[in-house]
Amino acid sequence: MARLDQKTVDQVCKELETAFGNRFSNNLSVRDTHSHNETKLRHEVPDGVVYALSKDDVVKTVKICARYKMPIIGFGVGSSLEGQLNAPVGGISIDFSKMDQVVSFSPEDMTVTIQPGITRETLNSWLRDSGLFFPIDPGANASIGGMASTRASGTSAVRYGTMREAVLCAEAVMADGRLIRTASRAKKSAAGYDLTRLLVGSEGTLGLFTELTIRLHPIPEVVSSGICTFATIGDACNTVIESIQCAIPFARVELMDEFMVKACNAYSGLTLEPRPTLCVEFHGDEASVASQAATFSEIASAHGSSNFQQSTDPEKRAQLWKARHSALWAAEASLPECDVFSTDACVPISRLADCVTETQKDLKEHNLIGPIIGHVGDGNFHVFVGYPKDNEREEKRIYEFTERLSERAISMGGTCTGEHGIGQRKIKYLRMELGDAVDFMWTIKQALDPDNILNPGKYGFPEN
Amino acid sequence: MARLDQKTVDQVCKELETAFGNRFSNNLSVRDTHSHNETKLRHEVPDGVVYALSKDDVVKTVKICARYKMPIIGFGVGSSLEGQLNAPVGGISIDFSKMDQVVSFSPEDMTVTIQPGITRETLNSWLRDSGLFFPIDPGANASIGGMASTRASGTSAVRYGTMREAVLCAEAVMADGRLIRTASRAKKSAAGYDLTRLLVGSEGTLGLFTELTIRLHPIPEVVSSGICTFATIGDACNTVIESIQCAIPFARVELMDEFMVKACNAYSGLTLEPRPTLCVEFHGDEASVASQAATFSEIASAHGSSNFQQSTDPEKRAQLWKARHSALWAAEASLPECDVFSTDACVPISRLADCVTETQKDLKEHNLIGPIIGHVGDGNFHVFVGYPKDNEREEKRIYEFTERLSERAISMGGTCTGEHGIGQRKIKYLRMELGDAVDFMWTIKQALDPDNILNPGKYGFPEN
Repeated sequence: MARLDQKTVDQVCKELETAFGNRFSNNLSVRDTHSHNETKLRHEVPDGVVYALSKDDVVKTVKICARYKMPIIGFGVGSSLEGQLNAPVGGISIDFSKMDQVVSFSPEDMTVTIQPGITRETLNSWLRDSGLFFPIDPGANASIGGMASTRASGTSAVRYGTMREAVLCAEAVMADGRLIRTASRAKKSAAGYDLTRLLVGSEGTLGLFTELTIRLHPIPEVVSSGICTFATIGDACNTVIESIQCAIPFARVELMDEFMVKACNAYSGLTLEPRPTLCVEFHGDEASVASQAATFSEIASAHGSSNFQQSTDPEKRAQLWKARHSALWAAEASLPECDVFSTDACVPISRLADCVTETQKDLKEHNLIGPIIGHVGDGNFHVFVGYPKDNEREEKRIYEFTERLSERAISMGGTCTGEHGIGQRKIKYLRMELGDAVDFMWTIKQALDPDNILNPGKYGFPEN
Repeated sequence: MARLDQKTVDQVCKELETAFGNRFSNNLSVRDTHSHNETKLRHEVPDGVVYALSKDDVVKTVKICARYKMPIIGFGVGSSLEGQLNAPVGGISIDFSKMDQVVSFSPEDMTVTIQPGITRETLNSWLRDSGLFFPIDPGANASIGGMASTRASGTSAVRYGTMREAVLCAEAVMADGRLIRTASRAKKSAAGYDLTRLLVGSEGTLGLFTELTIRLHPIPEVVSSGICTFATIGDACNTVIESIQCAIPFARVELMDEFMVKACNAYSGLTLEPRPTLCVEFHGDEASVASQAATFSEIASAHGSSNFQQSTDPEKRAQLWKARHSALWAAEASLPECDVFSTDACVPISRLADCVTETQKDLKEHNLIGPIIGHVGDGNFHVFVGYPKDNEREEKRIYEFTERLSERAISMGGTCTGEHGIGQRKIKYLRMELGDAVDFMWTIKQALDPDNILNPGKYGFPEN
């Protein structure tokens, strides 16, 4: 994989300019924005940016690029975290932000077909009066296409699943410029290979979404939010494990470790006990929400937590979850003068307490500060680690920490990334986690994109 | 794709006999049993059968076969319905029935890792005292490996999903004899391509499962079963659509058309009104089940159904669902002297009433008898059609009917198969449904199995 010679790059840019006029740009600041990654990785800018308005634009761009073996990188809003948008050997960024329409809505089927550039907040505004909503919430107001590409999830995945479950079918442009539909709109199907789920989470390396049909859910009649604290991480995790075994359908269940709670107290002027804390949310009708909260409270008590508070009143709910809602900013404030980034690991829930506790020990041993927050129902957690700006030695120590974290998660039967993806930064751990299976991924990649033009340099396949 | 010459076949059989002794058989009746399909398709027998005891046996068999380009067909219990087990160009059947052990059980994670030959009933017996169960119920007591291979589902998929959702990760032998793990045991992951879901539903054409880690669910505290009738299929379907929009988490919701009800009355001596009928099941605690039943009853009333009966008492529940439980036998009894088979189509639920009603009209116009039963929450339904034994002209009429049914489902945005798979019989409709996407499936197949030795002759790829 090498950068194309400048003459070829110029030729591709000329053809794109002819095709798209001022919807093509090779202005440096535009290109730089499109390698924005929400990461501390060095920007690797593409050679040009196409603002697509339609699937035809995407097909046209891919066909021009394919002819010259020019790399192509899809761009939603730029909220990915592992360098997915970087262009290590140049290429053309296709900006989907103007492909942000609802194509069709079927309330009876509880599905909506959208263009990939629509963001989850815009979609939920659009749906507001329908009684339905799109629950997946990765934090950022990401585009749905980007979320599908990284198999995003977040706080509500414990109840509503991840993008793996949310995408019913898709339309995508493949590396040769052909447009396919991955599946019918039927809720289930036994017809052929599951191309939908092959493309979801492939980080733009196998195809570019031009339409997605996604599942919606009824807006819950009643929402209850609650909070309680525990003596140990183990007590908190065991409370969640038993609750799930008792069929409590948590809508959200978030763990904050003692350091995260301290940071939130300092940032938001709260007076929470600096102990492992669970923030929970229940969805249902009044009776069901009350019963979920009562059962949860009982189980939490049996694990030594006696301060469970909950409310269905929106204002009180906001108050109870205030710490959780401000956690990212609190973490950043607790690491002043630092670059902060959020790492991501996920283990079977039976190993979560071990993994979090060992990670806390690791941080302490290495004199690092890293408040921890977890989507505990899924065994997924984040560590917010920071290092003094522009200090390479400190930066290296953080990378070594994330390496140990990935190894720890993998050794416990887990994954190096629950929801952020591989991108450029976790290439090494993909192989560590999945061994020879990565060879078969590469075989698929080579078969579907023989010239390796779709988002090259990600995943760490042999050529890279 | 052609049959190997007899000398090569003999050589492979000799090597397998040397490797496996009396766990290899080329006895004709054994081979014939292994092409059993629960279908009216002609048996196409394999050249030999290996009874595997371990993943090493599977690896060894695949390596011997791969050397000679000998086809390989996985066999569970032989309950597939579309000719998945036939060996059109011969080959070796690997019988997984002795690989039926539980490898490990993690109640905290609500997962179990099993060998593929274990059947769902055996697994549920094994789990009995754990408080957990494996909910997916395709009717037959299928092997879990077979269920994963065909992406099976059944009555409880509306609540618990299909094998697509049930399989967390797998171990599989690929066409070159290499053993891979498709994913970690973490509940979610953003690491790499979703090989798990690529293999699930691939009908043994991409790899052979040697272990599966599957999700379990808490055994519900209370189960309530109910039944009610409607004036039209549309009223029944609209009741289900509104109920799902109101967040009623049906555990099962089955539709029987008037002809199915008549057949059940005749077979079981029941006196149900011969009208479109819904059989429902709710899972939860006492309060939640009562609230689900009450809301459902209200919605059903609004659609003209005033005879909803339900009970949580096991004996009464069995009585209420008696018609549904005996439906297959009732359908067979209503078609005396006939070969009966069950076809399968699935549409977005918004089109289900149209699809069922048009199918009834089609049956009538063509003087065919075909009671209909549907997993209505998923838009999936079956028609039991029969034709006089050994009457080719009548058999042809039935095939023409299933062709019209597939076309109808596809034209409504649905699929030619919700849960039975493609096998040999639905090859034509796979292309009709998915167009060029099938080319990319074939590209993947060629890349992962270049000699086309894994279950050839299925899916209708170009070579076949």
